[in-house]
Amino acid sequence: MTQPARAYADAGVNLDAADRAKLQMRDAIRTTHGPQVLGGMGGFGGLFAIGELGLREPVLVSSIDGVGTKLKIAFTLNRHESVGKDLVAHCVNDILVCGARPLFFLDYLALGAMDGDQAVAVVRGVAEGCREAGCALIGGETAAMPGFYAPGEYDLAGAIVGVVERERIITGQGIRAGDIAIGFPSLGLHTNGFALARHALANDDLAATPPELGRSLGDELLQPHRCYLGAIWPLLEQGLVAGMAHITGGGLIDNAPRVLPDGLGADFDATAWDVLPIFRLIQQRGAISWDEMARVFNLGIGFVAFVHPADVERVLALAGSEGARAIGVVRTWNGDKTPRVRVEGLA
Amino acid sequence: MTQPARAYADAGVNLDAADRAKLQMRDAIRTTHGPQVLGGMGGFGGLFAIGELGLREPVLVSSIDGVGTKLKIAFTLNRHESVGKDLVAHCVNDILVCGARPLFFLDYLALGAMDGDQAVAVVRGVAEGCREAGCALIGGETAAMPGFYAPGEYDLAGAIVGVVERERIITGQGIRAGDIAIGFPSLGLHTNGFALARHALANDDLAATPPELGRSLGDELLQPHRCYLGAIWPLLEQGLVAGMAHITGGGLIDNAPRVLPDGLGADFDATAWDVLPIFRLIQQRGAISWDEMARVFNLGIGFVAFVHPADVERVLALAGSEGARAIGVVRTWNGDKTPRVRVEGLA
Repeated sequence: MTQPARAYADAGVNLDAADRAKLQMRDAIRTTHGPQVLGGMGGFGGLFAIGELGLREPVLVSSIDGVGTKLKIAFTLNRHESVGKDLVAHCVNDILVCGARPLFFLDYLALGAMDGDQAVAVVRGVAEGCREAGCALIGGETAAMPGFYAPGEYDLAGAIVGVVERERIITGQGIRAGDIAIGFPSLGLHTNGFALARHALANDDLAATPPELGRSLGDELLQPHRCYLGAIWPLLEQGLVAGMAHITGGGLIDNAPRVLPDGLGADFDATAWDVLPIFRLIQQRGAISWDEMARVFNLGIGFVAFVHPADVERVLALAGSEGARAIGVVRTWNGDKTPRVRVEGLA
Repeated sequence: MTQPARAYADAGVNLDAADRAKLQMRDAIRTTHGPQVLGGMGGFGGLFAIGELGLREPVLVSSIDGVGTKLKIAFTLNRHESVGKDLVAHCVNDILVCGARPLFFLDYLALGAMDGDQAVAVVRGVAEGCREAGCALIGGETAAMPGFYAPGEYDLAGAIVGVVERERIITGQGIRAGDIAIGFPSLGLHTNGFALARHALANDDLAATPPELGRSLGDELLQPHRCYLGAIWPLLEQGLVAGMAHITGGGLIDNAPRVLPDGLGADFDATAWDVLPIFRLIQQRGAISWDEMARVFNLGIGFVAFVHPADVERVLALAGSEGARAIGVVRTWNGDKTPRVRVEGLA
């Protein structure tokens, strides 16, 4: 499966270390495999038998993403277990907004030097994220790219493929004026906004513990990207969701409109949830306007489901323990063709 | 589809340029879409309707890969159209060895700075490779990662998903002693061995034209990674192939054994094909043993199909115009459990 390819002793890469890492990765990867994963096929490609899904009109939903510059925090702290989980969570959430559940995942890890321990830590994190999401890790590339990344640094990307019954695709086209936006809390920055966050916090020590955070700044910035599959799936099974948005780069301002039909907008009330202390710290340190903050960061809400008013009570009963709460309302929007949202109460 | 995410003016990224690039990419991407690609779903995920494949037991075959340090050549020459095609070809070939045809592709492009022209050139190359392989480009991530890559540099990875009828998966388990290895010519280094090649050629000028190459060294190193789908597919349709290997990092020595059953090996005769002049140049410049050359580079054979003797004539009739030729023979191998191949006649 994961192939430590392009590893040549003459060009600064230790092939033995790559082979050792490959074996250690394999153990982690295998824990994600169910009966649909076909093994023993030579390893050029990962095989997944889709004939056993029992769907009438299966539609594959896929997404690819990276971890972004959150990786710089992992490098500084020399902690590499969590970024793989972050990556999987991001991708799972991206296909979840269509109503899809994950089937399989592939990861791409490009390192400045083949550090077996580091590569194994990263891939173990990917495998753990996959296992928790019921997703098979069926392929990967571990590439040593000397001269590309600094020693001890790497980039990490991954692709997910999931499936949804065609008639159950969630498009957001059923969202109506008056529908309620149900917000699901984030755990921190997730994997977005790190370019701006690092800029704002450039003079802060990652080892220091600002009192308002209750943990070190480094720990805070590495807080995991939450996977919303478990919170959302029971709602989808009951047909309670009209549309969803994963709040990534662009914040509520840019992500919520991606699912709203033309002619609609949404008003969010930021006093309805906890704007996490890390966002206040970034805002103060960088002297960043709250308007820009809301265009870059999730501000404490990582996922939004739009729900008809009659369904709100059932949704909160099913997902209240996941932190679900009403945070906004859909309204008509006649400004222009592109749906727009406002976030009020930020200060 | 391709989202220029994580782009903040404050942190060294030009958001307008990202938006312009996004629109230009969209035009290229759309040319790869057939009726199975479902649009207008908000763009968090790419949707592909698999219910219309008409297969009884479809198995998805997937792979993820990068371009590797060949990118450094593209940076030096400031030519960014071809690497995307290289990436797609690599991935198509990787799933082709299982007998799979491509369905869709996703790309990951991480840039040091959001240079719209550069990003558009790269993604156009990806789209062109997809179009030629009949593969839909349904997702992508364009990430600006300032401080990660030097200005003007980037990394590029991609994931492919294809499909094969379960009973037609090519595993190589049908290969027998006496079978003939049919080699398909490469066009150059493809995307493998660049760490070693750049090491060996470190004192050479990419703009110079060594007489034995007949083109500049830079042009030679950027020669495309050949896609073997068109050459191989007619053979698969007629059931003429017992096993296949894509000759990537590791060369014939490491890649051919991946498809051979235990107890078998193969002898290749390098006088049966043209070892391309670029490989002789690298060998001389780097004073590299031919044994190591054969473990790193494709040496002029980018893809191998193992064929029963009775089928050789038909295979050569069907694929002779693609450069197919007999280059080796399968033999029993009792040395140890791992199949091994030899390459003779290299000098």
